[in-house]
Amino acid sequence: MYLKKTLLAVAIAANTFVTFSALAAQQVDLLITDATLLTMNESKQTFENGVVAIKGNKIVAVGDQSIAKNYTAKTMLDVDGDIVLPGLINTHTHASMTVFRSLGDDVPDRLHRYIFPLEKKLVSRDMVRIGANLGNVEMVKGGVTTYADMYYFEDEVAKTVDKIGMRAILGESVIKFPVADAANADEGIQYALNFIEEYKDHPRITPAFAPHAPYTNTTETLQKIAKLSLELDVPVMIHLAESHREEEVIAERANGMSPVEYMHSIGALNKNLIGAHMILIDDKDIELVKESDMGVAHNMSANIKSAKGVSPALKMYDENVRIGLGTDGPMSGNTLSIIDEFNQVAKVHKLVNKDRAAMPPIKVIDMATMGAAKALHMEDKIGSIEVGKLADIIVVDTKAPNMLPVYNPYSALVYSANSGNVRHTIVDGNILMKDREMLTVDEDKIRQEVIEFTKIVRETVIESGEVVQ
Amino acid sequence: MYLKKTLLAVAIAANTFVTFSALAAQQVDLLITDATLLTMNESKQTFENGVVAIKGNKIVAVGDQSIAKNYTAKTMLDVDGDIVLPGLINTHTHASMTVFRSLGDDVPDRLHRYIFPLEKKLVSRDMVRIGANLGNVEMVKGGVTTYADMYYFEDEVAKTVDKIGMRAILGESVIKFPVADAANADEGIQYALNFIEEYKDHPRITPAFAPHAPYTNTTETLQKIAKLSLELDVPVMIHLAESHREEEVIAERANGMSPVEYMHSIGALNKNLIGAHMILIDDKDIELVKESDMGVAHNMSANIKSAKGVSPALKMYDENVRIGLGTDGPMSGNTLSIIDEFNQVAKVHKLVNKDRAAMPPIKVIDMATMGAAKALHMEDKIGSIEVGKLADIIVVDTKAPNMLPVYNPYSALVYSANSGNVRHTIVDGNILMKDREMLTVDEDKIRQEVIEFTKIVRETVIESGEVVQ
Repeated sequence: MYLKKTLLAVAIAANTFVTFSALAAQQVDLLITDATLLTMNESKQTFENGVVAIKGNKIVAVGDQSIAKNYTAKTMLDVDGDIVLPGLINTHTHASMTVFRSLGDDVPDRLHRYIFPLEKKLVSRDMVRIGANLGNVEMVKGGVTTYADMYYFEDEVAKTVDKIGMRAILGESVIKFPVADAANADEGIQYALNFIEEYKDHPRITPAFAPHAPYTNTTETLQKIAKLSLELDVPVMIHLAESHREEEVIAERANGMSPVEYMHSIGALNKNLIGAHMILIDDKDIELVKESDMGVAHNMSANIKSAKGVSPALKMYDENVRIGLGTDGPMSGNTLSIIDEFNQVAKVHKLVNKDRAAMPPIKVIDMATMGAAKALHMEDKIGSIEVGKLADIIVVDTKAPNMLPVYNPYSALVYSANSGNVRHTIVDGNILMKDREMLTVDEDKIRQEVIEFTKIVRETVIESGEVVQ
Repeated sequence: MYLKKTLLAVAIAANTFVTFSALAAQQVDLLITDATLLTMNESKQTFENGVVAIKGNKIVAVGDQSIAKNYTAKTMLDVDGDIVLPGLINTHTHASMTVFRSLGDDVPDRLHRYIFPLEKKLVSRDMVRIGANLGNVEMVKGGVTTYADMYYFEDEVAKTVDKIGMRAILGESVIKFPVADAANADEGIQYALNFIEEYKDHPRITPAFAPHAPYTNTTETLQKIAKLSLELDVPVMIHLAESHREEEVIAERANGMSPVEYMHSIGALNKNLIGAHMILIDDKDIELVKESDMGVAHNMSANIKSAKGVSPALKMYDENVRIGLGTDGPMSGNTLSIIDEFNQVAKVHKLVNKDRAAMPPIKVIDMATMGAAKALHMEDKIGSIEVGKLADIIVVDTKAPNMLPVYNPYSALVYSANSGNVRHTIVDGNILMKDREMLTVDEDKIRQEVIEFTKIVRETVIESGEVVQ
């Protein structure tokens, strides 16, 4: 209330005494006020009555309520003490797979016996678009503003990202066996090259290569992609050190090397690489990861759901590896919401380390914001609320009965919040969701398309005699 | 749509040909239709277009859409395919502690160094009422219909439960040192006896004893309570086999016995007992638990947040111990929502057992419904949707972007759902929440009272120099 009165007074003053230009407020597009503001900058600065000013797609001012008078804004967003933090970054997912969510969750050898055959039958341009649309809505509703995706027909995913207004790194899959959009790895690489050419100048989309994993690609393919990625300066995303099956195949291929050692030995471990999972790694592997300056996507929820184990992610974080949180795909996690990873990340690292202080909430939030930005090599643009950075910001409801009270906002986010507590989501200065309503896409239409597509999935799965439950 | 037309035709028929009494529809109070219905009965029966008829506080019919025509209802609830399941049961919490949520989450030796001193300063009738009101709202919004509470001034908690319309077992604390409502254990027992006398005939509230733990009470007190509880036929709730500190104190007191062995040896392990946590137990303890017919509250989220370890809850469940899920208090869990326990329970048991098939979703849902009802010795009244049982039922939104699609409703509940996905909550035949709106209490007023009280908490904590974050 005090704030609003002040702004009004300033506005009147600005009209009355136009000659006092030193006093005139600067015009911005969006002014967020009365925030419990977590900047997630280097010093982890916070403001109790925080203000963020946004002009175009950039943050132009960050401070306490005293700076509010310096700005007039086209859109005012008084968040009434709610928590304001950088948009969450999902460093690893397969958004289109939402259409398969809740299928065969506990099938043994699930990837090879269930998921690959299912995808062979059902992946198409339509499926990719329909699934990505749903995944995007789920992510925006859960406060994810940037995501890193690995799938097929990524040009279809790109169209959905462009439309909704999110930010994304989209990696076109390369794999040695025939898939929906390529007969072999070389065709996959060519698909990726065309996609990269088409999207290389998009302001919010970074096209990328996504070789599925070391064991599902040849050394030659992995080396070819590494070389191309450095020439074109695009990211490479890969599943790495995820399973014992992978360890065995690579050990046999490469004289007993670990997957990380192998990738290093063939020249594929470099600053453009983002490795997802990284569960089965030792200290020697971590040294190679650090030297390479690669990024790491830590997918706690998916890794424990499949009983694959717990990545030494906390150790990597503490040793300044570029590491952020990811959800993995909706057949793995099963949600795409980073906020719903928080408490699992905190608690399981505490459990594994037998120490309740091992994983304080602020580290978890850092891994979901600046850590994730670093993992994607985007820390100059996103990951914190700082002047000059892109305006990717979310607002989390502090009055929901599960959130009240908030003595420590980091703790409240990690232990109390769920995706339904996100109120507003802003990407590139644009409000994509306001008061939980999607502003840039038709959520009902997206939902209906998914429901229609699930009929095809049901028929296909049931006809083929596969496990549904 | 088909269903509604049929009902209309039946209604007209009933009016026109009143003499054909065999055709006349039975009048009920509430008819739920078009449900993805999980009954959680003995055979785990499900219905794709399920119908539940409720008269007064009882379920009078359960079936598929063919039975709908047999009923006319004062209130119709067409849930459009949403998941309908028994109300969730929270077998262990301290609801009033919501007012302390997010305080000092990672303080070492937290219970003794932080929580007990905080409670000494701040627990009062007002605090208990204000906190319980918030906890109740959080639980109803998250689909909890029955809870088991251990705290002080439980007569204040009882008033809030009576008002909101939930079901609860409320245990008055007994502890050997001075607390807000008793100077010693004997005064605590007397407080409990008065409370039991006052509430022993309440239709939804079961008053109980709640000795805090074996190590915070004397053998004499524990035996006295055991004897009284059998005489009065009321439950006894206790924290049991939770911490190494407890193990050490009890081993010293009782010739190296485990806490469970000790309770058995003093005659306090019996069918009226509900033990919370039960982390540090071995096979011999489990045998004693089975013999005693006691109930167990499994609080995964709280136990891993504090790095205390993982209870062998899955083993107990598989060996038919009476075991259900609990959240523990909001300083421990930190939410009171059983639905938000689901994925942690499933994933951590998978992780610990190194087997993705170790904890299928249906077991998790069973532990939250029938398992929990058994843990509280209430399985004849609640825990499943069956004719003759009390009408405690919840409806979970299947169209939220994080829930879509639902090929397997158990899987969707465990891996996709969060507390925000609960749409309707029904207790004792009354709708307490409809379309996420509270119907029996004033949520805004409750929230305001909490916000006011947090000012006192902040001042007290900060003045005393205690850790806030």
